[in-house]
Amino acid sequence: MSGSTFGKLFTVSTFGESHGPGLGGIVDGCPAGIPLDESIIQLELDRRKPGQGGLASTARKEADQIKILSGVFEGVTTGTPIGFYIENTDHRSNDYSKIKDVFRPGHADFTFNGKFGFRDYRGGGRSSGRETVSRVAAGAIAQELLKAEGISIYAYTVELGGIPAEIVDIESAQSQPYFSPDPEAPAKWDERIKDVKSQGDTIGGVVEVRATCVPVGLGEPVFDKLDAKLAHALMSVGAVKGVEIGSGLQAACSLGSLNNDPIGPDGFLSNNAGGILGGISSGQDVVARAYIKPIPSISQEQQTVTTSGDATTITIGGRHDIAAIPRINPVLKAMMALTLADLLLIDRRLGVRD
Amino acid sequence: MSGSTFGKLFTVSTFGESHGPGLGGIVDGCPAGIPLDESIIQLELDRRKPGQGGLASTARKEADQIKILSGVFEGVTTGTPIGFYIENTDHRSNDYSKIKDVFRPGHADFTFNGKFGFRDYRGGGRSSGRETVSRVAAGAIAQELLKAEGISIYAYTVELGGIPAEIVDIESAQSQPYFSPDPEAPAKWDERIKDVKSQGDTIGGVVEVRATCVPVGLGEPVFDKLDAKLAHALMSVGAVKGVEIGSGLQAACSLGSLNNDPIGPDGFLSNNAGGILGGISSGQDVVARAYIKPIPSISQEQQTVTTSGDATTITIGGRHDIAAIPRINPVLKAMMALTLADLLLIDRRLGVRD
Amino acid sequence: MSGSTFGKLFTVSTFGESHGPGLGGIVDGCPAGIPLDESIIQLELDRRKPGQGGLASTARKEADQIKILSGVFEGVTTGTPIGFYIENTDHRSNDYSKIKDVFRPGHADFTFNGKFGFRDYRGGGRSSGRETVSRVAAGAIAQELLKAEGISIYAYTVELGGIPAEIVDIESAQSQPYFSPDPEAPAKWDERIKDVKSQGDTIGGVVEVRATCVPVGLGEPVFDKLDAKLAHALMSVGAVKGVEIGSGLQAACSLGSLNNDPIGPDGFLSNNAGGILGGISSGQDVVARAYIKPIPSISQEQQTVTTSGDATTITIGGRHDIAAIPRINPVLKAMMALTLADLLLIDRRLGVRD
Amino acid sequence: MSGSTFGKLFTVSTFGESHGPGLGGIVDGCPAGIPLDESIIQLELDRRKPGQGGLASTARKEADQIKILSGVFEGVTTGTPIGFYIENTDHRSNDYSKIKDVFRPGHADFTFNGKFGFRDYRGGGRSSGRETVSRVAAGAIAQELLKAEGISIYAYTVELGGIPAEIVDIESAQSQPYFSPDPEAPAKWDERIKDVKSQGDTIGGVVEVRATCVPVGLGEPVFDKLDAKLAHALMSVGAVKGVEIGSGLQAACSLGSLNNDPIGPDGFLSNNAGGILGGISSGQDVVARAYIKPIPSISQEQQTVTTSGDATTITIGGRHDIAAIPRINPVLKAMMALTLADLLLIDRRLGVRD
Repeated sequence: MSGSTFGKLFTVSTFGESHGPGLGGIVDGCPAGIPLDESIIQLELDRRKPGQGGLASTARKEADQIKILSGVFEGVTTGTPIGFYIENTDHRSNDYSKIKDVFRPGHADFTFNGKFGFRDYRGGGRSSGRETVSRVAAGAIAQELLKAEGISIYAYTVELGGIPAEIVDIESAQSQPYFSPDPEAPAKWDERIKDVKSQGDTIGGVVEVRATCVPVGLGEPVFDKLDAKLAHALMSVGAVKGVEIGSGLQAACSLGSLNNDPIGPDGFLSNNAGGILGGISSGQDVVARAYIKPIPSISQEQQTVTTSGDATTITIGGRHDIAAIPRINPVLKAMMALTLADLLLIDRRLGVRD
Repeated sequence: MSGSTFGKLFTVSTFGESHGPGLGGIVDGCPAGIPLDESIIQLELDRRKPGQGGLASTARKEADQIKILSGVFEGVTTGTPIGFYIENTDHRSNDYSKIKDVFRPGHADFTFNGKFGFRDYRGGGRSSGRETVSRVAAGAIAQELLKAEGISIYAYTVELGGIPAEIVDIESAQSQPYFSPDPEAPAKWDERIKDVKSQGDTIGGVVEVRATCVPVGLGEPVFDKLDAKLAHALMSVGAVKGVEIGSGLQAACSLGSLNNDPIGPDGFLSNNAGGILGGISSGQDVVARAYIKPIPSISQEQQTVTTSGDATTITIGGRHDIAAIPRINPVLKAMMALTLADLLLIDRRLGVRD
Repeated sequence: MSGSTFGKLFTVSTFGESHGPGLGGIVDGCPAGIPLDESIIQLELDRRKPGQGGLASTARKEADQIKILSGVFEGVTTGTPIGFYIENTDHRSNDYSKIKDVFRPGHADFTFNGKFGFRDYRGGGRSSGRETVSRVAAGAIAQELLKAEGISIYAYTVELGGIPAEIVDIESAQSQPYFSPDPEAPAKWDERIKDVKSQGDTIGGVVEVRATCVPVGLGEPVFDKLDAKLAHALMSVGAVKGVEIGSGLQAACSLGSLNNDPIGPDGFLSNNAGGILGGISSGQDVVARAYIKPIPSISQEQQTVTTSGDATTITIGGRHDIAAIPRINPVLKAMMALTLADLLLIDRRLGVRD
Repeated sequence: MSGSTFGKLFTVSTFGESHGPGLGGIVDGCPAGIPLDESIIQLELDRRKPGQGGLASTARKEADQIKILSGVFEGVTTGTPIGFYIENTDHRSNDYSKIKDVFRPGHADFTFNGKFGFRDYRGGGRSSGRETVSRVAAGAIAQELLKAEGISIYAYTVELGGIPAEIVDIESAQSQPYFSPDPEAPAKWDERIKDVKSQGDTIGGVVEVRATCVPVGLGEPVFDKLDAKLAHALMSVGAVKGVEIGSGLQAACSLGSLNNDPIGPDGFLSNNAGGILGGISSGQDVVARAYIKPIPSISQEQQTVTTSGDATTITIGGRHDIAAIPRINPVLKAMMALTLADLLLIDRRLGVRD
């Protein structure tokens, strides 16, 4: 529970670094009888692959082949822990001499070194975004559980490099470049990416995550509110610097009379609350947005220090993404799925409601 | 652990409703030997009282007298759980017939009813903002622990009803109306409050929370990152709809070359990261902002339904605040303190660093 | 979670010392709609009072009046945390000068001092058996939840000072001296107590705890087996030095052919397993036994050291019990109830079974 | 946290079944800088292999080759999760038709089926003793951490099939058949095993587990006492039906004057307490004993029912052990190591003591 486990009843624990033999995890607490095989998880992992959408990510090959090691028997979960593993196939013996003794700005080099006394300098180690494969795998399992309850989750890009998208169709966004809900946005984003790349720079953006058909009642009062757990889940993904629920930041400069969602006999008449009231799901769509910072690895020269504290500069070359979007989208989807699955099982303790 | 406990090593568990006999909690895991008495906690509780700053809150009397019930001996903590209690002295037997069978828009009435099958209809029960007295009391204890490590925490208003404040002096903000870091803001905010009140409406705002002198190393990689725990902590406070760290939302439309904080021999040259890299404190100020929605209790007529699902309207009268700010500020401060105290003790497991 | 919280979903956190203002706790996670009032809890607390049965405990008055502070509305639990409190009314300002600087053999004085750097020397502080009032109160709530599922729990004395009882009637044992399941044992035990008391000495014994009508399925494979959680629960009670399940110690010198419980069409034909197979309840009675050491406070002179490490002797006078039995019985019952309640709610995550 | 995770700060989560691809786990929370490689873990795993000591276990080959997947860099732990994996090499495609539809007496077949609705019928699945390889691997890591603090752990057989051993030398017991502390016991035990085997039966025994050089202060008052956690840890191992601490069961029929450990200027003069007072380590050896039931797989005919509830009989043939001892010994050692490692790190939260 020192940081690599998420959830209380439906839990995932993960391990693995960017340049070790592989990464994986354990999903514990999943009820028995949920249909599961490797292909279901592989589908989500493939969405996280580089080169899936737009020009934001480089085309390097990362196989990310999932292997289920336990907890599934004759095509369904058994109720016991589901171990899974993804081998690192692409960790060629790079030359790390350039970054070994230098702290890269915007990376965790400085803080890992400060916390643990040294660091795995090969590409970030545990702090690398590579750890998110385990989240995506576990999230795919959570999504199967949620699917059995009718709940679906979507993660689509609503802004990239300052250029917004309209939310036209979230269903088809899943197969669009950049997971764009707006058919016209990807072309503009491609332009932006090309421009930024030519300057050796990187950009950020905003991803909206939405769960539909969530039953009333998920979330626990006070500290384990659905919005609190969701904020925790999303903010735990590297590069996320802000999280908002429903009308979010706009609520702060709105009026009570405008921000309250009136209720009619057929349900709520608006959804400024983002589907959460008092920390508990209201039956409306659960809506959150994650604000993503630009990738810190840029090819411009940056000012920094060596591990001995001497001033130096660093220019990070190589095959780096220009934006965390769209590769981060399935990760955010996974985190919402893990959050909802956990709160769903916790809510079941109350017994069946009429 | 079903929602009313926060933290892993330095934990607080709370109980209590707006209209029961009282509220309280237990702080467990606090090291022995920290100076503590009731007056230290009372000071923070008094900051949460109505009428402390500006016109945002009504002047009704809430005594909120803290009583320490255990865990302190001869003026210092003993290392065993600190029980505390705050009696409800102001819960006059109101007439609840008006709200008993109606769901108030923007409140947790609908979702509590859906989750638990019924609700304590007397003023919100457990979902009332009144539960935050326990957070403030626990946070005061956490702040004593942090003080022993040299860490201080500030929570000041940076926007109210759409009107921003400049951050001029956070030290003196503690004794300013609205905990304003800008001596000129309170007058403008008073005007805004008067105006909104006259329309029977309410407003929100933005509070910045900052910890100074935080050592390098707090936060655990992957799921228990400092920013993730902080987002959880702040978002768990009712009315908070968004949380950002450092440059936060601005990061999403910035460039990597601008958003990265360069490092010099004397430390970081900027703090867009908000004092957190890879989820671990960097030694800079830890900076977060909470976006607060308007108080949902408004005196304008609102459309809603009865608990039987029939259309009706509701007009909420009585002594209600116009904004959660500034009463929410000590609550947010408490939540950051609880987060840092917990991560501080978890980090100690690694043993002494040089 | 640093020691004063038990359970994962149905949790109790406690606080309080023997000589502070009072003791109490918080039960969190209890489903809504369970009938509860103070009289139900008081009944169990009264069973823990001195002088309830036999001569083992002194007749001093401990009022132990329960006060429910939250979580109950109109006679039923609300699903939110149940705070409770028991004032210390009997903590007269004793003269502690005799024990202040001396470690009492068999007590926690030495280890508390070593762990926390000092100790609350007034009668044991947090290490006093007095903390068990909170367990009994919480256990009474757990028993109400279990009762709603048809589960009952019994704790009866099967040996005292080396003299065994026969298990004749566990139902009526609840109202017998020493909670004896054997109408003939109390007289023999009274004799033993008188004899030991006259020598300034103390005795131990064995208590059996039994749950009836437990459904199949409670307990989680591997680390959170029902027997493991039960052993944890019972061993956490001061004075318990051994725990066995079912045939327990006898199993160690038995044969597989004798120790296995055969299964017939109407169920198991014996219960050596104590109602637990593979860590999961089998539907038979869950049976555990706790081995209790003699009370360490004896009026004979004992060899010890001062807090400065100098050799000295101590003779502990005053109103001390001769045996922890029968006052410990309701505490053990409470611990089994808390264990089962927690595992019951955790098991519910799996959904309804046919 | 639904059963496959142990510990709060130094945690192990495990996965895997007897007949799946493999077993493994994640150790999280281990401080950085502890020397670790696969050979250290392999040594402990080899102690758990069949045929290591005496005739109690069959000689079938189980390679149990450990593979570290993360958390170790340049020969030391990095402070991030240590993933490990042990492939199942010996799971030949057996014929399970005989046990598929029958509940084996003394096994978890009946309760797994009842809990999860069906079961992995191939040799026990998750309920098989095979899961303990993950405990042993994790325990080996815990022992490295403890070693750095000077703490050693021993597990030796003190009784087998009713025949006791004398505790002559616990150091050399590690390399004796049956991990016997008495050079004369193994021959007697061999005889007993031969005899029992010829009758198609099985036996149990008693294992003592001891930690030396434990510092004062490990264990948390009330629920997370060292003895309570230890009882939890040991009882969670399949086949353990009783746990005692120090004088244990003898304490129940002793006198206070005999059972209290007097204290002299050089320390305690006896160790009836088993190194634990008030749930906190006293600096003496921590001593616990686990009572092990006979292996339930016997080759005698047993009465049972089919999964449809019809009466039948079963005769379990094949390569089964006669006693869980000595293969269970390294497992019990591992569980004590995991318990102490966790409490050691939790205790560090208090800061450095003088």
